Amino acid sequence: MKRSINIAVVGLGQIGNYLFNELKNKKSDIEKKTGKKIKVVAISAKNPNKKRKFKIDKKIFYKNPIDIIKKNKIDILFEVIGNSDGISKRIVELSLKNKIHVITPNKALISKHGDYLSSLAEKNKVNLEFEASVAGGIPVLRTIKEGLATNKITKVYGILNGTCNYILSEMENSKDTFLNVLKKAQRLGYAEPGNPKLDLNGYDALAKVKILSSLAFNKKISKNINLMEGIENIESKDFDIADQLNLRIKLLGITELINNQLFERVHPCLVKKNTYIANVSGVMNAVIIEGKPVGESVLQGEGAGPGATSSALMSDLLSILRGNIKYPFGLTQSKRKKIQPYNVNNYINSLYIRFEVKDKPGVLSEITKKLAMYKISVQRLIQIPDSSKKKASIIIITHNIDEYNSKKCMNSFKSNKNILKSPVLIRLF
Amino acid sequence: MKRSINIAVVGLGQIGNYLFNELKNKKSDIEKKTGKKIKVVAISAKNPNKKRKFKIDKKIFYKNPIDIIKKNKIDILFEVIGNSDGISKRIVELSLKNKIHVITPNKALISKHGDYLSSLAEKNKVNLEFEASVAGGIPVLRTIKEGLATNKITKVYGILNGTCNYILSEMENSKDTFLNVLKKAQRLGYAEPGNPKLDLNGYDALAKVKILSSLAFNKKISKNINLMEGIENIESKDFDIADQLNLRIKLLGITELINNQLFERVHPCLVKKNTYIANVSGVMNAVIIEGKPVGESVLQGEGAGPGATSSALMSDLLSILRGNIKYPFGLTQSKRKKIQPYNVNNYINSLYIRFEVKDKPGVLSEITKKLAMYKISVQRLIQIPDSSKKKASIIIITHNIDEYNSKKCMNSFKSNKNILKSPVLIRLF
Repeated sequence: MKRSINIAVVGLGQIGNYLFNELKNKKSDIEKKTGKKIKVVAISAKNPNKKRKFKIDKKIFYKNPIDIIKKNKIDILFEVIGNSDGISKRIVELSLKNKIHVITPNKALISKHGDYLSSLAEKNKVNLEFEASVAGGIPVLRTIKEGLATNKITKVYGILNGTCNYILSEMENSKDTFLNVLKKAQRLGYAEPGNPKLDLNGYDALAKVKILSSLAFNKKISKNINLMEGIENIESKDFDIADQLNLRIKLLGITELINNQLFERVHPCLVKKNTYIANVSGVMNAVIIEGKPVGESVLQGEGAGPGATSSALMSDLLSILRGNIKYPFGLTQSKRKKIQPYNVNNYINSLYIRFEVKDKPGVLSEITKKLAMYKISVQRLIQIPDSSKKKASIIIITHNIDEYNSKKCMNSFKSNKNILKSPVLIRLF
Repeated sequence: MKRSINIAVVGLGQIGNYLFNELKNKKSDIEKKTGKKIKVVAISAKNPNKKRKFKIDKKIFYKNPIDIIKKNKIDILFEVIGNSDGISKRIVELSLKNKIHVITPNKALISKHGDYLSSLAEKNKVNLEFEASVAGGIPVLRTIKEGLATNKITKVYGILNGTCNYILSEMENSKDTFLNVLKKAQRLGYAEPGNPKLDLNGYDALAKVKILSSLAFNKKISKNINLMEGIENIESKDFDIADQLNLRIKLLGITELINNQLFERVHPCLVKKNTYIANVSGVMNAVIIEGKPVGESVLQGEGAGPGATSSALMSDLLSILRGNIKYPFGLTQSKRKKIQPYNVNNYINSLYIRFEVKDKPGVLSEITKKLAMYKISVQRLIQIPDSSKKKASIIIITHNIDEYNSKKCMNSFKSNKNILKSPVLIRLF
């Protein structure tokens, strides 16, 4: 690699702008560590005049990022727009084809097109780096690819979405409603101001799970969705009851091999308060890796925000500048296997189910009858009447039951007029 | 790098023997990930006939490791003997001079001769890798060198000695004496059977602190000892009192920059029970890294044992096989600066001091008078008489005081006949 390195930054939102500033400030530090002189020769965004925290240089500004590649000799390109398709995909594709290294925090892109883009990178002998796509500042991908490289990893799980973890922590502490806490999260910049849906419904965490899976199990990215549930239906009263049971609600992303079948999932979990994972609060992320011979490894850190994300983007940059040319997923495309998916129907858990019902005789027995019909046995039952509204909450903790029966049972409640809305179901972890 | 790689393993104790077996078992996995065929062509230990968990191949056995280099073409050598000098140093030196990559878990060697050996590696353009020297299976060195490469790190601290952490956890849980718990630790293989002193007196943790410092602050390894205290003087009653105060005793290794001066230290600390670090128990290690812009990163995992150590040794191997040739300390020798040491006398803490005294009038006032003389103000005082032995324990929690005064004050008690032994001092973290 030559000594002078030309860099382009495509996307100048919160992260791109912060990164641009870091690249300027860390120039001499980078030269000291790698012997390379970096220079940002092109930047691109929709609007050059948008108000930004750090000043950008308009002389190197391009409205259309494709022009950057046409008009400059770029060595490394940062894609920080963040879409799974469209211009994000096009610019990454074009860069790799032009033998330009690409660095991106874009989990939507990598979890959807990672295999294809990785082939492109391998063919053109350049790096495609995406450390920032999972768990922000925590170098978890590098840890799996390198630090734990020869371990047989059997399970990776954790708190992968800072927005959800913040909302759950804050709902628990403030006893406020989901919507109020969501608004607060948006005000503080912890949730997307426009459309936070992809964070809240589990999609973002699942994209990260898919990337973690690929690395941990040396396999292609899976296309199927085993199980994805978000936190939108959780209410304050669920926290009250969890508290009584000495439990806490967390949205977990989990991937593991069960009998050599792959089981990826994201859903809210009830975890014991005295466990490690229960005490990771706010916007923090945590990833737990189980492997042989290393045992259990835990990594925790800030999962989002421009600082943490830039830290990961810059680590990718240094890896490239140091000449650590590597396969994006740790081994050559042709050696990455396919793994059969696990049948989610066989997933067994103890369940927390909250019913909102009309407060009248016979409703409870209707519920327990259905449960019995699907072989769901009750471990604990709590009934909280709200007599002013002639309603009641019925909370049931079940013994272990598989998804097949629990799903069928939950569906069977839909036609029951005494049950006022879809029951809330949270699995015990 | 050529496709066939010859490997030597020098030292076949617990770790070397486990590693030898891993190298055999992971051959095809390594080839898949790196395209390289590895072959262990030479092994060495004091005694070929010692009982070992995994069978060794006597056809490739050498009594004298120096002969390995004379008689074979070795590409990568593992040094797993573990001494700071002697044959450990000689074989590493000789290997590097012969352009052989070296991998070692030997913190004693690296913390003493790391700068010199790193120069040798750089001069001969080979790798010197020592991920396993700090925190066993946790890839913390790689995380600092690569994952957090452009962060400005200000502090690194944690639980770096699994032996001490096990003993402290076990003393707390079992209420048993230091010596009994030490014996148990030795039986379980958590403490050196022969001479566990280097673990117990803080030396081992300090060696790791020195390595962490060098990487975190891009500096030469420091030669001076700021502050090193072990756990040998802690007694069951200290745990009882800590428990009453909602505190827990942990041996922490800490390195930080204070006004651009380096402060490295190892000593027992009293930490609040509800903190993260207080809940890392048994043989687990944990490292916390504070940096900008990444914030606080936490890494936790098994800190010792052949499995965890081999995991780190193998990650070093893969790094070399993938062609990631790097400076051992992340940047070229000539750019590693020297940092002035911090004056330990200025170190300020609230202190826990336990005195064992004759139970007679006036003793307490003798103590408090001395404390006042050295400007040490008392925050809390507990007196526990043992009337059968006409003795008492006096426990004092002080307000913040600097080391200069506290050391002088502690020395002043030496001549006091009413104080039966050296007071136990633990700093509040």
